[in-house]
Amino acid sequence: MGLLAPVSAGSEAESATGDRAFLQAMLDAEAALVRAQAAVGLAPASAARAVTEAARAERFDPRSLALRARAGGNPVIPLVADLAAALPEAAAARVHQGATSQDIMDSAMMLVASRTLAPLLDELAATADTLAALAAEHRATPMPGRTLTQHAVPTTFGLKAAGWRALVLDAYARIATVRASLPAQLGGAAGTLAAFHAYAEATGQPVQPQSPSQPQPQPQPQPQPQPQPQSESEDIGLRLVAAYAAELGLAEPPLPWHVLRTPVADLGAALAFTAGALGKLAADVLVLSRTEIGELAEGTGGGSSAMPHKSNPVRATLIAAAARQVPALAAVLLGSMAAEDERPAGAWHAEWQPLRDALRLTGGAARDAAELVAGLKVNSHLMWSHLTLTDGLLVSERLSTVLAPLLGRDRARTLLVGASRRAAELGIPLDEALRELLDESDELLPDGQSPKDLLPPARLRELTDPTAYLGSAVALTDRALRRTAVHKDDLR
Amino acid sequence: MGLLAPVSAGSEAESATGDRAFLQAMLDAEAALVRAQAAVGLAPASAARAVTEAARAERFDPRSLALRARAGGNPVIPLVADLAAALPEAAAARVHQGATSQDIMDSAMMLVASRTLAPLLDELAATADTLAALAAEHRATPMPGRTLTQHAVPTTFGLKAAGWRALVLDAYARIATVRASLPAQLGGAAGTLAAFHAYAEATGQPVQPQSPSQPQPQPQPQPQPQPQPQSESEDIGLRLVAAYAAELGLAEPPLPWHVLRTPVADLGAALAFTAGALGKLAADVLVLSRTEIGELAEGTGGGSSAMPHKSNPVRATLIAAAARQVPALAAVLLGSMAAEDERPAGAWHAEWQPLRDALRLTGGAARDAAELVAGLKVNSHLMWSHLTLTDGLLVSERLSTVLAPLLGRDRARTLLVGASRRAAELGIPLDEALRELLDESDELLPDGQSPKDLLPPARLRELTDPTAYLGSAVALTDRALRRTAVHKDDLR
Amino acid sequence: MGLLAPVSAGSEAESATGDRAFLQAMLDAEAALVRAQAAVGLAPASAARAVTEAARAERFDPRSLALRARAGGNPVIPLVADLAAALPEAAAARVHQGATSQDIMDSAMMLVASRTLAPLLDELAATADTLAALAAEHRATPMPGRTLTQHAVPTTFGLKAAGWRALVLDAYARIATVRASLPAQLGGAAGTLAAFHAYAEATGQPVQPQSPSQPQPQPQPQPQPQPQPQSESEDIGLRLVAAYAAELGLAEPPLPWHVLRTPVADLGAALAFTAGALGKLAADVLVLSRTEIGELAEGTGGGSSAMPHKSNPVRATLIAAAARQVPALAAVLLGSMAAEDERPAGAWHAEWQPLRDALRLTGGAARDAAELVAGLKVNSHLMWSHLTLTDGLLVSERLSTVLAPLLGRDRARTLLVGASRRAAELGIPLDEALRELLDESDELLPDGQSPKDLLPPARLRELTDPTAYLGSAVALTDRALRRTAVHKDDLR
Amino acid sequence: MGLLAPVSAGSEAESATGDRAFLQAMLDAEAALVRAQAAVGLAPASAARAVTEAARAERFDPRSLALRARAGGNPVIPLVADLAAALPEAAAARVHQGATSQDIMDSAMMLVASRTLAPLLDELAATADTLAALAAEHRATPMPGRTLTQHAVPTTFGLKAAGWRALVLDAYARIATVRASLPAQLGGAAGTLAAFHAYAEATGQPVQPQSPSQPQPQPQPQPQPQPQPQSESEDIGLRLVAAYAAELGLAEPPLPWHVLRTPVADLGAALAFTAGALGKLAADVLVLSRTEIGELAEGTGGGSSAMPHKSNPVRATLIAAAARQVPALAAVLLGSMAAEDERPAGAWHAEWQPLRDALRLTGGAARDAAELVAGLKVNSHLMWSHLTLTDGLLVSERLSTVLAPLLGRDRARTLLVGASRRAAELGIPLDEALRELLDESDELLPDGQSPKDLLPPARLRELTDPTAYLGSAVALTDRALRRTAVHKDDLR
Repeated sequence: MGLLAPVSAGSEAESATGDRAFLQAMLDAEAALVRAQAAVGLAPASAARAVTEAARAERFDPRSLALRARAGGNPVIPLVADLAAALPEAAAARVHQGATSQDIMDSAMMLVASRTLAPLLDELAATADTLAALAAEHRATPMPGRTLTQHAVPTTFGLKAAGWRALVLDAYARIATVRASLPAQLGGAAGTLAAFHAYAEATGQPVQPQSPSQPQPQPQPQPQPQPQPQSESEDIGLRLVAAYAAELGLAEPPLPWHVLRTPVADLGAALAFTAGALGKLAADVLVLSRTEIGELAEGTGGGSSAMPHKSNPVRATLIAAAARQVPALAAVLLGSMAAEDERPAGAWHAEWQPLRDALRLTGGAARDAAELVAGLKVNSHLMWSHLTLTDGLLVSERLSTVLAPLLGRDRARTLLVGASRRAAELGIPLDEALRELLDESDELLPDGQSPKDLLPPARLRELTDPTAYLGSAVALTDRALRRTAVHKDDLR
Repeated sequence: MGLLAPVSAGSEAESATGDRAFLQAMLDAEAALVRAQAAVGLAPASAARAVTEAARAERFDPRSLALRARAGGNPVIPLVADLAAALPEAAAARVHQGATSQDIMDSAMMLVASRTLAPLLDELAATADTLAALAAEHRATPMPGRTLTQHAVPTTFGLKAAGWRALVLDAYARIATVRASLPAQLGGAAGTLAAFHAYAEATGQPVQPQSPSQPQPQPQPQPQPQPQPQSESEDIGLRLVAAYAAELGLAEPPLPWHVLRTPVADLGAALAFTAGALGKLAADVLVLSRTEIGELAEGTGGGSSAMPHKSNPVRATLIAAAARQVPALAAVLLGSMAAEDERPAGAWHAEWQPLRDALRLTGGAARDAAELVAGLKVNSHLMWSHLTLTDGLLVSERLSTVLAPLLGRDRARTLLVGASRRAAELGIPLDEALRELLDESDELLPDGQSPKDLLPPARLRELTDPTAYLGSAVALTDRALRRTAVHKDDLR
Repeated sequence: MGLLAPVSAGSEAESATGDRAFLQAMLDAEAALVRAQAAVGLAPASAARAVTEAARAERFDPRSLALRARAGGNPVIPLVADLAAALPEAAAARVHQGATSQDIMDSAMMLVASRTLAPLLDELAATADTLAALAAEHRATPMPGRTLTQHAVPTTFGLKAAGWRALVLDAYARIATVRASLPAQLGGAAGTLAAFHAYAEATGQPVQPQSPSQPQPQPQPQPQPQPQPQSESEDIGLRLVAAYAAELGLAEPPLPWHVLRTPVADLGAALAFTAGALGKLAADVLVLSRTEIGELAEGTGGGSSAMPHKSNPVRATLIAAAARQVPALAAVLLGSMAAEDERPAGAWHAEWQPLRDALRLTGGAARDAAELVAGLKVNSHLMWSHLTLTDGLLVSERLSTVLAPLLGRDRARTLLVGASRRAAELGIPLDEALRELLDESDELLPDGQSPKDLLPPARLRELTDPTAYLGSAVALTDRALRRTAVHKDDLR
Repeated sequence: MGLLAPVSAGSEAESATGDRAFLQAMLDAEAALVRAQAAVGLAPASAARAVTEAARAERFDPRSLALRARAGGNPVIPLVADLAAALPEAAAARVHQGATSQDIMDSAMMLVASRTLAPLLDELAATADTLAALAAEHRATPMPGRTLTQHAVPTTFGLKAAGWRALVLDAYARIATVRASLPAQLGGAAGTLAAFHAYAEATGQPVQPQSPSQPQPQPQPQPQPQPQPQSESEDIGLRLVAAYAAELGLAEPPLPWHVLRTPVADLGAALAFTAGALGKLAADVLVLSRTEIGELAEGTGGGSSAMPHKSNPVRATLIAAAARQVPALAAVLLGSMAAEDERPAGAWHAEWQPLRDALRLTGGAARDAAELVAGLKVNSHLMWSHLTLTDGLLVSERLSTVLAPLLGRDRARTLLVGASRRAAELGIPLDEALRELLDESDELLPDGQSPKDLLPPARLRELTDPTAYLGSAVALTDRALRRTAVHKDDLR
């Protein structure tokens, strides 16, 4: 199924989001649920061990699950049947006990997201590091600044690379923040955790929590005043949710979020942001590697079926394609927030594929971006030579600013227009054209000074030198490079 | 890969769009290209036969192609290598001769679309037929009309079903029209078909067309005036395109459409339209099968992992989920029309997955819709009984309209408000409440008549009968049912 | 409100979609409704005349209507109040008689669409005409074909312009088709037209139609068999809808389409298509007017606040910006098809602004496109000179194709690679480099021939001439230019 | 222009985003720029005072600006002309000195966003407060939990309201965070701030900063080593940006963000999140106020033009409509991140309207949500009575869980199915049906006990009481209510 998705084919994002990976995540959620129930006394530790052992994706048939998912609308129902069938009766009875399909689907989706985002963050970090090195190396490499497709004033490649890195770090921060708060899902049929209370009731609880993994202090049984609810810390539902989240390594949700879709919306937004951030990098690479520009080139440009010797910016192309798709997928996810009832008929189901696709596309784009910047060839000589393509346009802003107070605004403008024209016509440098015009005139300024005395050849050369008109580019670059990425593990 | 897409799992749309199907379509395009070249004399018929025989998907490894597609950004490049490797040298040299990857990708996508849309149209036709029967059966079955979630005036289930059918027929027409014009793609490296001219030149043409399949008249060689181009009918490029389209069973494009994306945009729009049309049906089923309403039920409602006895409207849910996704995918496709150059770096690549997903989701939704309507249970008794839920609100529009000229506007309003209140308070029918109020009053009208003489009990009963206030519902239904679907084969 | 929308500021699309225009369209709908009711005998002709006279936007306050629209969720409710207040009582009572707000809103939206699309079609037609002239003028003007940002093989500017035109004609056809079928909306409270039956009942009908404009044959009263509905041609509701549509100059809808949103979905798709079609033109202009390329320039490029002498491709920029927005708006419209009940709570209201914005953006883009192409400057000299930028890459496909059968595949490749390198290193033309290499070698072919005899200088010059490698470009252009646009009035 | 946008008509979000407000924000940016230049010595304080005084929106004509914006593609160019024309020459020369249009547009957009988000946050806070009160009041009010449109198990209205509040607080946090980091924009023609260096050069700087508002320490002139840039803290560009941001009350950006669109993307995502969060509330209100359900009602439901006595959930409808639009607008904004060069030709221009519309729609939805919850009528009696609609389905999960260990799984199931059927057929309560079945049977359990002894009537009543099966609903509600909102001013 990767034939039409070269951006993600073979990537960690692809394998971490495939059917088998999702199946394993669902099994992980089912197993964690039994372990958590064992921890709070709702299931025997033996059942937890048996389910944990059985919950291995290679034992189940994802295609059969996919086909049988049609009946109930999700794959958890057939999975529970298959998992139970693979277990001794005592353990089988504990599988999925008290849960609803969405508990498992959502938890699995968060596990898949967490597992996909880890390598994605690594790719972003690697990309940012490479960009930092590029920016430092080229902190003073001048190149034409381009606005609305036209040369404007000079900039530096260092500033451009520092800008790319700033976006990548912004993406990193957003992804890392979202990843650190991915919550487990547990609410039961309608989000009240009521079935777990029934199990507690059926098993003669007050509950003695026993954890299969780590022993816990044994709280004293409390009389349950009715209808007044037990204190929250004693509530079997809340204790179970905490244990379940701990087993999954996911955050403990303040409320079941069956219809409070903050985690999914945040994921969608962060992924679209990341695809967009990488898309900026790709857009610039695509422009700057055009045949007529050639200031950048992909190190391993791809060939063409018609013209094998052609070197196409393939990495940038695939990133650009991803950046066109992910915002639309995020819009579906954000649109699904408006979900009715305790479980909506459609809005939830509409999240699954777009979220998976967004993870996959963005993860693939991150891999491609890391490869792209690692191999990027910078032709600083061409950058430099393009600065003079417009016969002085790039420095005209500076010239008019500096000459106006010396010569008067009108005289300065006349001089500049004339010199530009002469430079273009004769193919001579702008400073030479300026000098010739100044030499040809014997006009004096109101204060009696001669313009050519105020503007000796060396000053003219300096004023028309695009590489001397970089403003704060270097200072901005240096400052931007001092920003460091938060490490993804700092956030947990 | 269907685990998260129950709407399409196991459907013809799923198999017709899978990697293997796409691989076969690419092979079909490559084989058609050699056959077409043989037909116009650019390749030997033996090569065409050999390639056609070798071009079977089961001989190739889609996963390997997917992985190698990364290098050049599309799977055609490795496919050409594998296909050539599977052939004797003479035939191998003819594979992909003169073509560009996009020729094959786009043609394959059109084949896949055509093959997916055929069963989709069948599902739509079946759905429309079932809906026609439902509408006819229930042409006079009254039910509450609902606007902004509130009961308004009565309508009929027949009119509702006729409306669903009208949308399905609209979708059918749009899909059938698009399908009938899906074009082959052939342009060569930059859309000029120039390589085919070079092959003609290399093989000492003027070309003697020979078709492997059907013999054709042998046109006399024409002197080729240069730089004046040969007449179009003689142009080797144009003749080849025609032959290629014929081999593929696709439409002959007026121009290579590498960057004129009308077919893709039209497909996107038609698929989103269809998903929306089915989404309307699903939205109504979801409302009307609510526990508190129950006027409709899915024949084979799905269970729940938490509550196996629950009967969920699963088909409608999955259709609704599809209807939320396809418009976003269509937006990506429509957005990709703004593609620069002779082949864009990103906009084209961004089409592949969204188009495949849109085909799959819509095809799956069409299957589910056909199943849904085939099993739909209509509880006309509940429809009828809900008409009186609002104590006469549903007929108040009629009552005030009819009573105003009899009693005067103010008097009519006072009477209606009072009767509504009394009916609700005492739990009696509205006509009874009206009669009581009329009986209690001895007010005379300005013309001396007594209101109760104007409104005897039988008239009151008729006026307050929601089933007698159906307006043009039946006439509209009957007229709508006379519309017939265009058959998909009529359009070719 | 045009400050952030320069693409449409001052355009016909802007004024045709403004609040005042929408207000007038609502008034037109209200007036047409009374006239239509007069035509079928449900209202006196005098009321129709009075309402028609009063229904002038300048007499009403759109801002007040907007504010009062909040209460009921749409502006029709306060408009009906204001319109009634401006009329004598007898006419006032007829205003909006039997209608629902959506009848007026939807009809007004269709009027607005129709009025906006007329000038839009004119702009598209003008654009297509200009492009036809450009394509004809440049039918053989060679330029580099560019794929994935890199030079590929030569194409012609004529073929490019013909492609733009083909898209514009496709857009024209889609818009004209949609415009020709824009329907009036009339259904009453829940789409059954029941209120009109009540009015007929209240006024002692069987109805004697009397048209204020054209007299009609007087049908004989028919006994109304109950519950069997009257025949459709006699149905007062259906007759009224036909009269109403005729009054509005809109199509007669087969069913009330309150929740059958085909017209809106089709509008959305056609507008997004059009924006995308123009976006392709803009994308190419933006690339080709880059400082380093300069093959095209906008005739009236816009300045910059920082650099007044800069000439930006402003028209193309604004079109490109529109092309990024309209698909998202269309997605909202397509998503709104899945509307529950007889009037949905949200899906309908969500259409209004996106449809207006899509009309406005696309109409503005069409104006800008017409201006852009009218002033487009084509620098065919630069196009020509860029053909040699890649030292023969553009003709390498042809060379290898033609040389392979002469020299053998391997020998041909070695020769080409060597010559390309030599041409680049020495800055000499490729044919010269080829000649030198051939001269330096005394290798003979297997048949004893000398390669240099097979490839005399004139043949080398011809083979390396990019302008002689245009394939079918001219033939394709000529054929494409024979396609003509359907005139918008042909479709009504 | 509010006629089609009742959700925002008359709201603070509408006025804060209108053309006049945007014009004032542009003027504020221009004035702040001169003041900041005065502060760092690039302009005289007198010019700063003059520009600040002149920069009042009422003195300028937004319509004229909109029309003249077409030439250069944005309204800053004509605004600078008009502003300069309104000033004495000395001050006029300082207007816009060194800036590019995007500096002003982006800064103005951030000001507009900041000014729109302040009341939006207040509305969200008010909504959250009202919801907290509702949740507390109804912390134990039972109602049917509904999943996939069907009754599932009981929940509480308190838990539902607490969930709404949690989403509103999530939205608050996201908006407040984005608002606190909205940056000023200043970069000059290509983001290097070079023009300001030229001004410094022209005015014989090293710069003596003098602030018109607050005096600052006079740094000693530093020799400027060339080409080595001055230290960042001394860089005139960086100092100016800091001063400009301070004047605007916006955050100081680390880099000019002309093409690093983090602020816009974050705004888009946060607004779509907020619209979605409010959309969830609206979706629930729409379901629960259906005629057949009636558990909730809007306090001031809106009428209908056809049926004035109808009470429609208008606030919820308008919120739902906004929630359908904003994600699509956010997708445009996120898609615009992939912007080429130092200023893109289209991607930037495509942001303006969608961002304004997203602010307006979301701000309007927040107002409507505050109104909606303030007037929400909760019919807890209907909630309670709906619990028994499904003849025990809502408690079947509990019953089977508790009875299985007592009676054995098979016996328990047989008993439950039989009792459910009997309850439905005879219209008796489920506990009564259970009791009758137990009474009729004299079967003993394997341990010799009689089932009816284990399940006395009081226990049966308790077990079948939906209001005793609320699980952790109250505990979850109580815990959720302890979360407090961050105040928007805490974040600055």
